[in-house]
Amino acid sequence: MVRALYPGSFDPVTNGHLDIMERASVLFNEVLVSVLRNVSKNCTFSVEERIDMIKASTGHLKNLKIVESKGLVADFAREQEAPVIIRGLRAVSDFDVELKMALMNRHLNNDLETVFLMTRAKYLYLNSSLIREIASFNGNVSDFVPPNVVERLQKKYNE
Amino acid sequence: MVRALYPGSFDPVTNGHLDIMERASVLFNEVLVSVLRNVSKNCTFSVEERIDMIKASTGHLKNLKIVESKGLVADFAREQEAPVIIRGLRAVSDFDVELKMALMNRHLNNDLETVFLMTRAKYLYLNSSLIREIASFNGNVSDFVPPNVVERLQKKYNE
Amino acid sequence: MVRALYPGSFDPVTNGHLDIMERASVLFNEVLVSVLRNVSKNCTFSVEERIDMIKASTGHLKNLKIVESKGLVADFAREQEAPVIIRGLRAVSDFDVELKMALMNRHLNNDLETVFLMTRAKYLYLNSSLIREIASFNGNVSDFVPPNVVERLQKKYNE
Amino acid sequence: MVRALYPGSFDPVTNGHLDIMERASVLFNEVLVSVLRNVSKNCTFSVEERIDMIKASTGHLKNLKIVESKGLVADFAREQEAPVIIRGLRAVSDFDVELKMALMNRHLNNDLETVFLMTRAKYLYLNSSLIREIASFNGNVSDFVPPNVVERLQKKYNE
Amino acid sequence: MVRALYPGSFDPVTNGHLDIMERASVLFNEVLVSVLRNVSKNCTFSVEERIDMIKASTGHLKNLKIVESKGLVADFAREQEAPVIIRGLRAVSDFDVELKMALMNRHLNNDLETVFLMTRAKYLYLNSSLIREIASFNGNVSDFVPPNVVERLQKKYNE
Amino acid sequence: MVRALYPGSFDPVTNGHLDIMERASVLFNEVLVSVLRNVSKNCTFSVEERIDMIKASTGHLKNLKIVESKGLVADFAREQEAPVIIRGLRAVSDFDVELKMALMNRHLNNDLETVFLMTRAKYLYLNSSLIREIASFNGNVSDFVPPNVVERLQKKYNE
Repeated sequence: MVRALYPGSFDPVTNGHLDIMERASVLFNEVLVSVLRNVSKNCTFSVEERIDMIKASTGHLKNLKIVESKGLVADFAREQEAPVIIRGLRAVSDFDVELKMALMNRHLNNDLETVFLMTRAKYLYLNSSLIREIASFNGNVSDFVPPNVVERLQKKYNE
Repeated sequence: MVRALYPGSFDPVTNGHLDIMERASVLFNEVLVSVLRNVSKNCTFSVEERIDMIKASTGHLKNLKIVESKGLVADFAREQEAPVIIRGLRAVSDFDVELKMALMNRHLNNDLETVFLMTRAKYLYLNSSLIREIASFNGNVSDFVPPNVVERLQKKYNE
Repeated sequence: MVRALYPGSFDPVTNGHLDIMERASVLFNEVLVSVLRNVSKNCTFSVEERIDMIKASTGHLKNLKIVESKGLVADFAREQEAPVIIRGLRAVSDFDVELKMALMNRHLNNDLETVFLMTRAKYLYLNSSLIREIASFNGNVSDFVPPNVVERLQKKYNE
Repeated sequence: MVRALYPGSFDPVTNGHLDIMERASVLFNEVLVSVLRNVSKNCTFSVEERIDMIKASTGHLKNLKIVESKGLVADFAREQEAPVIIRGLRAVSDFDVELKMALMNRHLNNDLETVFLMTRAKYLYLNSSLIREIASFNGNVSDFVPPNVVERLQKKYNE
Repeated sequence: MVRALYPGSFDPVTNGHLDIMERASVLFNEVLVSVLRNVSKNCTFSVEERIDMIKASTGHLKNLKIVESKGLVADFAREQEAPVIIRGLRAVSDFDVELKMALMNRHLNNDLETVFLMTRAKYLYLNSSLIREIASFNGNVSDFVPPNVVERLQKKYNE
Repeated sequence: MVRALYPGSFDPVTNGHLDIMERASVLFNEVLVSVLRNVSKNCTFSVEERIDMIKASTGHLKNLKIVESKGLVADFAREQEAPVIIRGLRAVSDFDVELKMALMNRHLNNDLETVFLMTRAKYLYLNSSLIREIASFNGNVSDFVPPNVVERLQKKYNE
């Protein structure tokens, strides 16, 4: 029984994230999506909103759970008895950061393995901050995020 | 008749930017330099100052116009009936960001082509923030920006 | 009237190359596709075959011509009175090589501009050698090359 | 029950490869190491020697099997009913190649997932060709390959 | 007599920095570590604390001196009669930034050479901001920074 | 007294190499340029020709010596009592290869330090194989290699 942790800010969740979640749920017995309550980073959506948006799009993935986390990912993985961290890889600039994080996490928790999955080519250029930027200018993001996220973005930026 | 859009912050314009503008004006019938009124980014110079600095150095380029823009570049290009966006490429870290932007812009506006030009080798290490940093310490930037920008930087940092 | 040169081995032409050709034919008055007779590189298809394969897929592009070339691209561009070279960009490893070539070509021919276009995301992982490898093992390449190339590859590898 | 395929040339197997095999055997129910009989690439060791060297160092991994393969990895994975390919990631130059292969393999076999594991920092600079080069000059490779491979390399290069 | 300058924020100094200092002190007659009083960047430790932490770990390096600096590195190197700047290289994302800085510094001070040293593989994924992040969550950083820095971090984040 | 080794194929030496040699001769007491007799790589010029070409351009560098080498660089450095290897850095693709070599060389010879120098911006796109290619098509290489190399290339490719 391998439980895998997929940590992130998900501010908001994109189709790229959902693609990784679907694939991870095939590979591992249980997938724990952990939404970081990030103290230093100003998020557009609250942890609760971010969890709700993921839940609304992942009901069909029976072995996936969404939780809030704080602190170091390496510690949270140990607490949750998850020996595997899942990360999506996109571009080369991701790679450098991810390599550092993976080596550091293994150092902090020797039993922790980081597993990288590649997002589909059509999601290679997606990230949450780009989505927020486009949405803030009333750009159409419906190809990049699920319908419930489109709505929330519209509300957020029309307030 | 191909009209091309060259968007940027130009805070301030550098010789690298001017090099791209000169080349673009040879390749395309009309080049529209759009200076972004950036809400989220604190600029050192106002949009008006940034436009003035470009104008003072591009009088010889008869098919080049400088305008202010807001919002998404993909939308602005459509409004201006410019089917082409011009971007300068320098280093690998640029490349990743630019690839993402180009793919996203085409997604948002299917008729929009992004054309990349390489800056001369001697401008490969130039960017506006480095210029501002050097100028703020009274460093000599006269090889990197046109004379009118040297003056404005001196005024700005001696105020 | 801007004539642009799109040089390459095209051994064989892929949908990624054809995508670049279509876009270039919108941007420039005339596009000259030059197929390199490469002395040092062993090609799978002859120059004549490579030209035929491109012709069979580009009949609809009225301002595109396909020619053979030898020698340095910078010299050939001058001979053909083409002030522009077109190159497709895909991954970071391309970028380094292309930057070197662009800077060198401008050095060899000061009037020569290199213009980079990005291939669509779905073609980012395509290149001719990968196509040949898949075809040599009877893999299905019909999503990556036009029908006439599929046929030629089948003949080549079943001979 | 997830069976994972770890394909490679392993010419010869290094401690970096063995590190990946050990970790993969924890993550997946069964790991199939496939040694490619590579037609186009001249290998220093025969497929049989390469298989023997891996076997001699992996006896303790009960859910790992070593087999020979030919042809496309995507096809071999399907034949072996392995929905997962494992790849080790080291440097940025790997990343580009691996991204292309992963996207292509998924295209050729839609049910195929590529999972990337990072090698330990001390193996980041290891690859088989470097090992062969050092061994060919009687350099000491005992920190990089298991003892049986040290011996085989000595025999090979003293013949 | 070659004097070399090793500039940085050192907020706080890590074992990776100390590794570079030790090696630099073998290569050059005198090594001047300059701790930047950075106006625009918010540092966690004061310049005085950062200097103290380096001093506490480098007593054995007799040709190494630690000083505070302000302003442009190129100017400070000239003032201090140091014709060499030392920089540690880690990942590809470093490389781009460092290339730009090295070319710019030579431009600003033509007699100034930048010399790059590679950190040990085990320090490739270390940087001060990661250390601060881990320490702020009470993670164990004793493998990455010297004992006196461990203590200071604990005090800082338990205050 | 620090002796530094600058190893390479130098097939032929370029202005980029000569730039590195000049700078190294300022930094170190003695610089040993070692020309590799490369068994596996087909060189255009013989070791003797390559040594002659470097000699003809470096007479003014009094602390520079040119020698032939074979085998592993780490071993040759030890034999020659040179604790330092010098390498020029250009592009990102260099960086990856150089990082691997530097880490491996330190592993093979723990007292060996690799020092990287950046070539001038105008030589960033230069390498020997590009020079040979241009020369083989009678392209003008006089900006990239010293006069004696121009002559030798002309003879070589007109034979």
